[in-house]
Order: sequence, then C-alpha cells, then structure tokens
Amino acid sequence: MQEERIINTIKSIIGDKYIGDDCAYIKDLGIVVSQDSLVEDVHFSLDYMTPYELGYKSGKVNISDIAASGGRCKYMTVALSLPKTISTDFVKEFYKGLVDAIGDVEIIGGDITGSDKVMVSITVIGTDKDRRISSRSHAKEGYVIVTNGEHGSSAGGLRLLQAKNPISKPLIEAHLKPAVDLKMSETIAKNIKENYAMMDSSDGLADVLFKIATSSRVSIVLDFDKVEYNPDLKKLFPNDYKNMVLFGGEDYKTVAAVPKDFALQHDFKIIGSIIPKTDVPLKVINWGNGSLDITNLEKCYNHFSK
Amino acid sequence: MQEERIINTIKSIIGDKYIGDDCAYIKDLGIVVSQDSLVEDVHFSLDYMTPYELGYKSGKVNISDIAASGGRCKYMTVALSLPKTISTDFVKEFYKGLVDAIGDVEIIGGDITGSDKVMVSITVIGTDKDRRISSRSHAKEGYVIVTNGEHGSSAGGLRLLQAKNPISKPLIEAHLKPAVDLKMSETIAKNIKENYAMMDSSDGLADVLFKIATSSRVSIVLDFDKVEYNPDLKKLFPNDYKNMVLFGGEDYKTVAAVPKDFALQHDFKIIGSIIPKTDVPLKVINWGNGSLDITNLEKCYNHFSK
Repeated sequence: MQEERIINTIKSIIGDKYIGDDCAYIKDLGIVVSQDSLVEDVHFSLDYMTPYELGYKSGKVNISDIAASGGRCKYMTVALSLPKTISTDFVKEFYKGLVDAIGDVEIIGGDITGSDKVMVSITVIGTDKDRRISSRSHAKEGYVIVTNGEHGSSAGGLRLLQAKNPISKPLIEAHLKPAVDLKMSETIAKNIKENYAMMDSSDGLADVLFKIATSSRVSIVLDFDKVEYNPDLKKLFPNDYKNMVLFGGEDYKTVAAVPKDFALQHDFKIIGSIIPKTDVPLKVINWGNGSLDITNLEKCYNHFSK
Repeated sequence: MQEERIINTIKSIIGDKYIGDDCAYIKDLGIVVSQDSLVEDVHFSLDYMTPYELGYKSGKVNISDIAASGGRCKYMTVALSLPKTISTDFVKEFYKGLVDAIGDVEIIGGDITGSDKVMVSITVIGTDKDRRISSRSHAKEGYVIVTNGEHGSSAGGLRLLQAKNPISKPLIEAHLKPAVDLKMSETIAKNIKENYAMMDSSDGLADVLFKIATSSRVSIVLDFDKVEYNPDLKKLFPNDYKNMVLFGGEDYKTVAAVPKDFALQHDFKIIGSIIPKTDVPLKVINWGNGSLDITNLEKCYNHFSK
C-alpha cells in the first residue's frame, strides 16, 4: 500500500509519538487537532456535487474526526485552493454549506491560494474539557463494539451518483450530505471512566475495526447480523451490499470499543466484541452462511474494488 | 483584486471576528493558529526546487507566521497532496528539510492524499505563554517601524532561478532556504508592555506596511535609505532593485510597529515611523530624488509585475 509506505517513511524521520490516531492529542494545551484534505477528482467530483454540498461535507468530515477522538469541536481553519475560473458564487455557496454543517464551531482563519483543481484543507481544534480522549490503541478484552446508524449508505450513494441514477434519495443524501450524529461520541467521552477506543467510519467499518484491533493488540469479532444498513442498499445492490456495509467509506458513523456494562447502561447498539489477540485481527460472523476472516485489509479492499 | 473579493464574500457569511491577522489568536486556549498552503507551479516549481528545499521552506514559512504574531511555535500538522508518480524519496527529503527547518516544533499529525500537483498545507499552533500577541491593527501614532535583515533578496533569487542564472548565491539561497530569524519577534513579544503590530514580510515590505497602516487607521512614512538590501541586488538588477526591495515577497523578515523608546532600548533597526492618518497610507521617502505615495497597493503590484 503506497500510503503505508509513505507513512513509514515519515515515521522514520519524525518518530511515531503522534502518528496513529486521526487526531493529535496535545495534553499540555488540553486540545485535540486534526487536519484533513479533500481534493477534486480524488475525493469528490463537481460533476455531481454542488459547492454547497462540498462545503457541508467538508465541515462534517472534519467535525466527525474530532468528535470521534472524544474532543469537543471549537475552532476551524480553512485553506481553499481554487482555479482562477472559479466564481465568488462558488466560494459563497461553499461557505454557506460549511457554516450550516458546523453548528457553533468558529472559523478562525485560513488561506486562499490558486491551483488547478479545487482543494479543501481544514484543521479543526477541539478541547478535552470534561472529556476523556480516545485512542485506537485503548481497546481491551471484554470490551464490546458499539456504533450508531447505518453503514454502507455512502458507498451506495456514490455508486448511484456515478451511474447518474437518482433512484435512492437516502443513499445519495448519505454521500452528499452525511449526517454526523455527535450524541454517542459525546456521551462516551463525557461519562466513561476507563480508557476506550473510538473512531469514525470515514474509511469504512472494517477499516476502523481492523485498525483498533491491530493498534490495541486484540482481536475483534463482528456480528454482521447486528450491523444496520439501509434497505435500499440490499435492494439495489443484492450482490454487493454486504461488501459495501463492511468496506464502504465516508459514512462517518461513530464506532467505539467500550466496557460492556457501560454500553448496556447507555443502551448502545452492540455489534461485536473484543477477544484476546488471535491470528485474525477481525472475524466477521453471520457473513452469509459462514464467517469472514480479515487478516489483510489491503487484500479485502482490492477484492472489493474489483 | 480577486483575492480581496473572495475574502469579502467569506466575511459576508462568517463575519470578520477573526479575519484580518495572519494568525488567529484564541485567547481562551492561550494559542495562536495559522494555516498556509503552498501549491506547485503557483508558489514553487520543482524545476528549480529540491524536495528538501520545499520541506525546509514550508517549515520556515509557517513558523515565521506564528513568530510574527508574537507566539511561540509549538506544534505543526502537515497535509501533503502528492501525484501518484512521486517517490517515497521525495517524501523522505521533504520531511528531512521540514525537520531541519522547524527546530523543536513537534509535528503532531497530518494527512496524505493524492492530487495532480504537489501541495503542502501546514497548520502551526503556538502559545501565548509569557508573551504579548500582536495585531496588525495595533500600530499607534508615535510608534516606529523596525525590521531585521535584508529585503528583496528572495525576489532577486527567484528571478535568477527562473533565468537559470546561478550568479548570486545569497539571493538564490534567500529564495530557496529563507533564514527566519526569530530573535526580534521573540524579544518584542516577551518584553513589550504595550500593544503592538507585527507581521512577517511574506508578501513584501510595502504589503506589510500598507496593511498595518490601513488596519490601524494611521499612516506610515518609510525611509528607503534605512532599508537594508543585499549589494548583489543593486548590481544585478540596477533598474529594478528598488521595486524588489519594496514589493518583492517571501523574505520572511520581521516588521513591527513598536513604541520608539522600546525600539531604541533594544537597539532595533528603525526604518520608518507612524504618523496620524493622511490620504496616503504609506509614503516612501528617499525614493530616488523624491518620494513615493502608495494609496493603492494593487496598482503598485501591477506596475511591479509588468
């Protein structure tokens, strides 16, 4: 995987103190920081996305990262790179979407530069006040996996957009205007007494679970029957919906490993459990008639994208 | 000016509480934040810049912003966008340059994405501990303008690089590996008792002074005879060196408006003074045989770039 090689190269120069989680937790300042970039024709296409939707999604994506760390989003800087042909109307609509997405988060600065393609790079700063910050390495044996909402919808929506087939509004909406529900992450960060692992499913449910398992040196058993997905997904993609639920990205759902009693106490949806480390970081049960052992995420991705 | 129109559009949506200074000062967290992007073929060309130099310059540029706010640089996130054809050696050299440039600043995170052109977007976080943070609106009548080092060298170096003429090492070095001297900004931020205006000359000396004058609702008189520049600049560009000194960007020198007694006490180089607001925000005296009245920066830029 090209990205992994690059990350290892970077680690070899700057060390790995901060590399691992999606957000950096700076304890002495009491803040969590996350920076994410969206590049035209890599992460989105203006063929099917309006400037408003781009702004909205950019905002949600970045808020989601901080929320999944357990932090409270407070401030945001926005770097926009725009081709000269872009109108000020584009900027206006982008910012309208952004502002609608981020609630009371304050945009405190940024930068505008020229470029060939539209590019958005956003940094969000959150605080740890009255919250416990998560780490993907904090899952423990006996913890359970909890999540909120439906998985796979965004991947389904993207497929429909690319095919110019507007047949399912909820799937398309999930891709263009992802709803990021902060209730679960907030409840966990504010109330939990133990260390825990939490991420958002920006790169897919399997990706989150695989990363938590390997970083925490445990294994995870996911019960596919417990995972929610939109009925349109199964209807429209009968041969592929299961892969979409497991491997599709950009749903931005909360996925966390927390103590079982805590999950029950808060009535969270439990979809899996943490077991002692085996050779299989992620085992998916109730996967059709059998189970799916994921030992190499890259191979699964390649399988999925074929 | 396209950029100004865009900024006004953004202001109309998010307000202007934080727009104005290069860094955002978040008082309740005691931090200053700055985000800057460098785009290939807009801000730099890999034809004449090595990956090491790009990393080095990216680091210095971003540190300079925070230092000019008066803050102490502490943490950095780095978003890199890279074409698929880029080798891991590029990333290695980039990070080596970056690490060499930033001293004890910690790289705490970031993001790597694909793109057509190389793009670097860096966010730096500094603290206000034991320091007074500047604002470009804090210059006052009776203050003087102080600066450190030579102006115009980077513009001269760029001209030589574009012409593939390596005749002056100091000018080319100034462009590719800018030295950012933090002594003056640190001394000011740690010792000054009054509010003050400070910026780096990333967009040129005239740009800084014009912005300070208009934001602070004062006028500035700059004595061109007092401004230092490299002797090579005059020798190589006898017809243009004065414009380069005044309007050339990317020197990253500290430029500040501080009380006169403070400047004298610290033996700072004084190059101008603040007077009550007139119709001319920036007057340059000893400009050849006469003086230059700058009332519209855009016109001067256009003149310069012809």
